[in-house]
Amino acid sequence: MKIDLKICLLILVFLSDAVAEGREPVTRARTAINIPDISGYVTLKCDLHMHTMFSDGGVWPTVRVEEAWREGLDAIAISDHIEYLPHKNDVSTNLNRSAEIASGTGKELDIIVIRGSEITRKMPPGHLNAIFVTNSAKLAVAEWRDAAREAHEQGAFITWNHPGWLAQLTNDVTEWHPEHTELLEKHLMQGIEIVNGRDYYPEAHRWALEKKLAILSNSDVHLPLSLDYFVKEGDHRPITLVFAKERTADAIKDALFDRRTAVYTGNRLIGEEQFLLPIFKNSVHVLNPQITIKGKQRVYVQIANDSDINYELEPEIDPGEVKLPKDLTLAARKTVLMEVRGKAVVTEGTKNLELPYKVTNLLIAPAESLRTRISLEVNFTH
Amino acid sequence: MKIDLKICLLILVFLSDAVAEGREPVTRARTAINIPDISGYVTLKCDLHMHTMFSDGGVWPTVRVEEAWREGLDAIAISDHIEYLPHKNDVSTNLNRSAEIASGTGKELDIIVIRGSEITRKMPPGHLNAIFVTNSAKLAVAEWRDAAREAHEQGAFITWNHPGWLAQLTNDVTEWHPEHTELLEKHLMQGIEIVNGRDYYPEAHRWALEKKLAILSNSDVHLPLSLDYFVKEGDHRPITLVFAKERTADAIKDALFDRRTAVYTGNRLIGEEQFLLPIFKNSVHVLNPQITIKGKQRVYVQIANDSDINYELEPEIDPGEVKLPKDLTLAARKTVLMEVRGKAVVTEGTKNLELPYKVTNLLIAPAESLRTRISLEVNFTH
Amino acid sequence: MKIDLKICLLILVFLSDAVAEGREPVTRARTAINIPDISGYVTLKCDLHMHTMFSDGGVWPTVRVEEAWREGLDAIAISDHIEYLPHKNDVSTNLNRSAEIASGTGKELDIIVIRGSEITRKMPPGHLNAIFVTNSAKLAVAEWRDAAREAHEQGAFITWNHPGWLAQLTNDVTEWHPEHTELLEKHLMQGIEIVNGRDYYPEAHRWALEKKLAILSNSDVHLPLSLDYFVKEGDHRPITLVFAKERTADAIKDALFDRRTAVYTGNRLIGEEQFLLPIFKNSVHVLNPQITIKGKQRVYVQIANDSDINYELEPEIDPGEVKLPKDLTLAARKTVLMEVRGKAVVTEGTKNLELPYKVTNLLIAPAESLRTRISLEVNFTH
Amino acid sequence: MKIDLKICLLILVFLSDAVAEGREPVTRARTAINIPDISGYVTLKCDLHMHTMFSDGGVWPTVRVEEAWREGLDAIAISDHIEYLPHKNDVSTNLNRSAEIASGTGKELDIIVIRGSEITRKMPPGHLNAIFVTNSAKLAVAEWRDAAREAHEQGAFITWNHPGWLAQLTNDVTEWHPEHTELLEKHLMQGIEIVNGRDYYPEAHRWALEKKLAILSNSDVHLPLSLDYFVKEGDHRPITLVFAKERTADAIKDALFDRRTAVYTGNRLIGEEQFLLPIFKNSVHVLNPQITIKGKQRVYVQIANDSDINYELEPEIDPGEVKLPKDLTLAARKTVLMEVRGKAVVTEGTKNLELPYKVTNLLIAPAESLRTRISLEVNFTH
Repeated sequence: MKIDLKICLLILVFLSDAVAEGREPVTRARTAINIPDISGYVTLKCDLHMHTMFSDGGVWPTVRVEEAWREGLDAIAISDHIEYLPHKNDVSTNLNRSAEIASGTGKELDIIVIRGSEITRKMPPGHLNAIFVTNSAKLAVAEWRDAAREAHEQGAFITWNHPGWLAQLTNDVTEWHPEHTELLEKHLMQGIEIVNGRDYYPEAHRWALEKKLAILSNSDVHLPLSLDYFVKEGDHRPITLVFAKERTADAIKDALFDRRTAVYTGNRLIGEEQFLLPIFKNSVHVLNPQITIKGKQRVYVQIANDSDINYELEPEIDPGEVKLPKDLTLAARKTVLMEVRGKAVVTEGTKNLELPYKVTNLLIAPAESLRTRISLEVNFTH
Repeated sequence: MKIDLKICLLILVFLSDAVAEGREPVTRARTAINIPDISGYVTLKCDLHMHTMFSDGGVWPTVRVEEAWREGLDAIAISDHIEYLPHKNDVSTNLNRSAEIASGTGKELDIIVIRGSEITRKMPPGHLNAIFVTNSAKLAVAEWRDAAREAHEQGAFITWNHPGWLAQLTNDVTEWHPEHTELLEKHLMQGIEIVNGRDYYPEAHRWALEKKLAILSNSDVHLPLSLDYFVKEGDHRPITLVFAKERTADAIKDALFDRRTAVYTGNRLIGEEQFLLPIFKNSVHVLNPQITIKGKQRVYVQIANDSDINYELEPEIDPGEVKLPKDLTLAARKTVLMEVRGKAVVTEGTKNLELPYKVTNLLIAPAESLRTRISLEVNFTH
Repeated sequence: MKIDLKICLLILVFLSDAVAEGREPVTRARTAINIPDISGYVTLKCDLHMHTMFSDGGVWPTVRVEEAWREGLDAIAISDHIEYLPHKNDVSTNLNRSAEIASGTGKELDIIVIRGSEITRKMPPGHLNAIFVTNSAKLAVAEWRDAAREAHEQGAFITWNHPGWLAQLTNDVTEWHPEHTELLEKHLMQGIEIVNGRDYYPEAHRWALEKKLAILSNSDVHLPLSLDYFVKEGDHRPITLVFAKERTADAIKDALFDRRTAVYTGNRLIGEEQFLLPIFKNSVHVLNPQITIKGKQRVYVQIANDSDINYELEPEIDPGEVKLPKDLTLAARKTVLMEVRGKAVVTEGTKNLELPYKVTNLLIAPAESLRTRISLEVNFTH
Repeated sequence: MKIDLKICLLILVFLSDAVAEGREPVTRARTAINIPDISGYVTLKCDLHMHTMFSDGGVWPTVRVEEAWREGLDAIAISDHIEYLPHKNDVSTNLNRSAEIASGTGKELDIIVIRGSEITRKMPPGHLNAIFVTNSAKLAVAEWRDAAREAHEQGAFITWNHPGWLAQLTNDVTEWHPEHTELLEKHLMQGIEIVNGRDYYPEAHRWALEKKLAILSNSDVHLPLSLDYFVKEGDHRPITLVFAKERTADAIKDALFDRRTAVYTGNRLIGEEQFLLPIFKNSVHVLNPQITIKGKQRVYVQIANDSDINYELEPEIDPGEVKLPKDLTLAARKTVLMEVRGKAVVTEGTKNLELPYKVTNLLIAPAESLRTRISLEVNFTH
C-alpha cells in the first residue's frame, strides 16, 4: 500500500501535537488518608463542620463533596449557619438546600453527606453544630435553647464549636459558662471541637475528658479548601477520626454518641489511649526485631511506618543494656533505622528488651503523650 | 526576682505548645508569573473567561479574584452565561451581579476585574464572550445577532470561545461557518480562543492569523481553580498575555482590539514573533559568551533563564566550527550548561558564531517554531 | 520551690532555640517501590550495573548501598570496569575491593550486594557485565573471549551492556555482530540491557525476545545517584525487576538464568505478559464493579491503583452497551473515576461486561502494549 | 512523492517512542540562592568545610564542585583531614590531591575552589580548619601548635570547627579553653563555626562577638550532599555568606580576615546588623505604601519578598493609629498581604507611620532579633 508523503507527515504532525506534552495530568483522583483501622472498628475520616455559599461560604455545595472525595474523607457534614446569611439577597434562604444539593454528589462519589446546621449565637453558648438533623428550617427560632431542643428532638448530635475562638472570648480566656453546664445536663450537647481549623484548644480537651464529651476536629472551611490547606507537602485539613462499626451514616452517629472519636490535626493525633495505641501499633512494624550485638557494636533495627503520620518518639528511660538515639522519628510511609549500640559491660546471652517510649505527637490528654514499648530480642555476644 | 517553678514550667509548656509545629504556614500569598515585559509594553497575565455560581460555576465571585491574585494574574473577566442558569431556582438571575461582587475584591487586592458575559448558543456561531460590557442584562435577547450587536454597542470586545469544543462539532471537525464570516464583517468578533482549558486548536490559530483576530487562552473555569490545575509542579491555568501600555483596564482593552496578545499554556508560548522573540531574549542570558576552545576540548557556556518557561531548543543546522548538543533545554529559573566542543580541524583565532536555534515550544504559527540565535565569541587555539 | 526568673528565662530561650524549627528532618529513610509480588515470586527491585571510584565512578562503594537502601531496592551489583581505571594513580587497582567494601554495608542495611565486573571493550562485543563472579581480578586478561570464559567458569551471569550506546555505534545503528552470536552460542551471554540510564533500545528488546535473553534495566550510575535522578516527583533510576523465589542472592541468580525479569523505567514496565499482567492485576482494584445505569445516565466506577506506576489505558474497541472515556489513567497510589454512560437504546437487565483495554505504558514487545479487561456487572434500567 | 505506508508507520512508531515521555528532564542545572547583595559588596554563598574520599568522605573531589554549582554556591573549600585517613589502604595519602582534582572542575564550572585542610585533634583545641593553605602536606606534624603555625605562615585563614560538637565535649558543655585563648592571641585563629551541619552553637556565637572572630556556617559534609539535605522543599546546606568586593578567591580571603560574613542556616540568617539589615531591606518591597483607611475599615498592604528566606516578623509595640496582625510572615519569593485596620477614634488626615518590627528569624546576637521598620503613609478618613 502506497500513501502520500504529505499525508504521512500530516499524521506525524498530528501525532506529535497529541503527544508532545504527554498525557493530560489526572486532575480528579482520590488520595487515601493512611491511618489504620483498629480492632472492631473502621477508622472513618470525617469533617463535620463546613460552609457553602448558602450561608457565608464561597462554594456551591457539590464542591464540598468533590473536595472530600479527593482528600480521602469518608463523611462530611454540611453545616451552614442558621442565623447568618450574608448572601440572602442573591441566594435562597432555604436552610435545607445546601445539604440536599450535596447529597446527590455524595451518592455519586460514595461520600457520606450528613445534614447539619450551625446554630450561630453570641457567647455564651457560642456556636453549636447540630448534625443528623432532619429539617434545618425548624432550627430558625428566636431562642438558642429552643433551637437546641428542636435539634435534639430531631435526633441531632450537638457540638460546641470552636470554644476557644478569640472573637468570642472575654480577655482571651476560653471559658466554660453555666449555659454549657445547662446544655450538658439537658443532653443538648454531646461533643466539643477541640480543634477548629488550625487551632487546638487544650482547655476544651480537658473539659471533654472531664465531662465525657466526644472530641471533634473540623475545618469550618468557608473558601475552597485548597485556599486554606495544602500549602506544603503533607498539609491537610483537620479531621475527626470516627471509630465506627461500618462505613455508614448510622454507624457514624452511633460512634459519635458513644464518644468513639479522635483528632487528626497537622502531624498530631489526639484522643484516648484505647484508640491511639492501636493506631500506632497497627501503623508500625519492626522488621528485624531479633538482633545480635557484638560488644559495643552498632546494629540497625529497621522500623516501617505505613501511616501518614510522622511518629515522633523519645525513650522514656535509659535502658540498661543498650544505647539508643535520644529521639527517633518514624517517618510517614517510610522505613527508618534505629541505631542500637552495645555497652561496655554486657551480660552475654539473649534478652527480651521492652524499650519504653513516649510518642510526643500523640496526645492522650493535654500535654500528655502516648506511651508505648518497642520490643527487641537481643543476642549479646563478645 | 523569684518566681514559682510551677509557673515557669507552665510558661514552658505554653511556649512549647506554641512553637512545636513552627509558625503557621502562609496560606495567602501571591506567586508572580515570570514572563518578562517587552519594549514599550508591560506583559499582563490575564484570564478572560470564567464562571461563578451565578451561572453554572461552583464558586462565589470573590473567589475568582482571590485565585487570580494568588496565581500572579493582573486581570480577569467574569463571564457568566447569559442563557444557561442552572442554579436559577436558588440564585439571583441578575446578570450583572457576579462582576459587581467580584469588583469589590478586585479593588481590595489590586486585580483588574472586567465585566463580561458569555452569549451561549449552539453552533454556529457557538459561544461568544463579550467583555467590557456595561450592562449584561441587555444581552439576554432571543437572537444571538442582537445580543452581539448590543454587546458591540456597549463597546465590548467579542471573542469566539472554544471553536474546537468537541461537544459542538459535527464529525469532530473544527469549522468556520458563514456566521463567523458575518460576525467578522460586521465587526462583531475581534478575538478567538485558540486555547480553552487544556485544549489547543491549531485551526483556530490559523484563522486568527488569516483573519487578523486577537488570540486568547482562557481557563473557562467552573470549579475552584485548584480542582482543575496545579496537579503537578509548574502546572498553571491557561493565560492570555496582553501587551499593554500600562496596567489598567483601558490599556488592556486597547491591546485586545490592537491584537497585542499571546498565549501561555502548559510549557508553551504561542503568538507572533514580534512578541515571542523579545520575551525569549529578555528571559535568557548567556553568562560567558566569550570562550576559548583548545583543539577538540569541551567548554561549558552557562545560560541563565529567569522566566517560568522551560525553553526547548534545537540547533537548526550543524555549525561548521563547533560540536553542539542535539537539544538544549533552558530550564525555568535555572542556569544550564551548553557543552561546546572543538572539532578536529579548526582555523585558529577568534570567531563570532551566530548559532541558529529553533525554540520548539514557542509557536509563531501552527507547527512553526520561533527561530533565534545564540551569539558566542570563540577563541580557537591549539 | 522557688527559682530565679533569669534561669527560667534562660531555659525558655534554650527551649525556644531547640524547638524553633521543629524536629530535625529525617534524612535517612527508605521509601518502598510499590510494585506488587506475583504468584509464586517476590518482585525484587534490582540495579545490576553501577560504578564506584574504584573505576571511574564518583562515590565510595558504601554510598551505593546507602542509595539503594533509601530508594527501596533489594539488590545491587557493583560492576566497576576491569580495563578502565582512570583513578589508578590515586586509588588501589584491586578489582575486588569495591564489592568487598560495599558488602559490609549491605549486611548492615539488609541490601543484597552482588560482586560484578564490567569487561570494557570496544564494539564488538562492547561492554559485558559479569555478575556473581568470585574473583574479578582474574578477568583482567588481554582477550575479551578469555575474560568472558573466566567469568563463566566462576559461575557468572553475563549481560551485554547498553547495546545501543551511541558512542559505540557505527552510523548510529544498533547492530548485532557475529561476536554476539558467538557469545550466545558459547553460553557466555545470558542477558541484555534493553534499558541503560534513560535510554530504551527497542532493537535489543526484539533480540532478547528472539534469542531468549533475560532483559535488564540498569542505571550504570557513576555520580551520586541523586545527581542523575529525582529531578522531578516520581523520577527514579531504571530498575530490573527480578521475580525470585525468595529475597536472596541465590534466588536472584536463579531467576536471572531463568529469564524471570522485567524492566521498570520512567513510567513504563517492559516484559513478558506472564509477568506484566499479574503485576497490573495485583495493583488495580475496581471498588464498585456492580453498577446500575438508568437510561443514558452517567455512573462512576472507582478504580484504585496501589502501585507506583500511572497505568495509562485505552479502550480497544467501542463496547456496544456503554460509553467509555477515550483514555483512562489509573494514577499511582490513587483512586480514579471511570465515567460509564448508558446509551440511547439499551436492553434492560443485568449484563457482565468485559471491557478490553490496552495499557499503553506496559510493553510486552517493542511497540506492543499489554492487553487486559475491566470486568463490570451492569444493571441497565429505564 | 509516494512512500510506503509501512515506512510511514515505522516513522510514526519511532516518533512516538521518542516523544512519549517528553523531553528528558534537565538533570544538570544551577539554582540561584536568592539573597541580595548589599551596598559595596557582592553576597557570595560559600561552604568552607567539606570532605572527599581522600580523607573520610564518600565522594570523589569533583562531585563537591558539581554539587556546589548546582546549589548556587560561589565558593567552596575542600578541607580533608590531615590526621584521619581511614581509606589510606586504598587511596593515596597525598594531602594536596583532593583540592587539586577539584580545582579543574572548579575552573570548568566557574566555582571558586579553595585549598584547605582540617587539623584534626582532640579537644582542646579540637578541629581547626586552615583554608587558603598552599601546601597541606606540611601540616602533617606531631604538634597541633606547629600545624597551626605552619598554616598561618602559608597565609591561611584558620577556623575553630564545630566547637559544640557533642563527641568532643565534657559533660555536654561547650567550653572555651586556654588553648583557644592561645590561638587567638597568637593570631592562629580568625574564625569560628557557629553553625556546623544542622547545629547552631549560641555560645560560639557569643564568643565570636566578644573576641571579634568571623562567624562561619559550614556543611562539613562527608556523603553526597543530597543524602543529608534537600529532604523537604527549601532545605539547603548551611552557608557562610561572604560580603566580598568581588567574586574572587582573594576577595573572599580579604572579607574573611575582615569579618565580613554572616550565616544562612535553615530559615535563619545570623550576623551583624550592618549585614542583615541591608539584606532584609534589599529583599523586601512594600508595593502600596500609600493607603487610605476609612474609619475602622480593613486595607491590605502588599509586601513582596524576592529572597529565598521566609522573613518572620512581629510588631514590637502596638501602634496607636492602626491595628496590625500579631505576626506577619513575608514568604520567600512571594507577595503577602498585611492587613491594616483603622481604629475607632482616629485623627483625620495623612500620617507617616514607622511601624517597628522584629524579624525573629534574623539574629544579630544569640536570642536577639534584628529590628526594622515598615513605613506607610496613611490617609485617614471617615
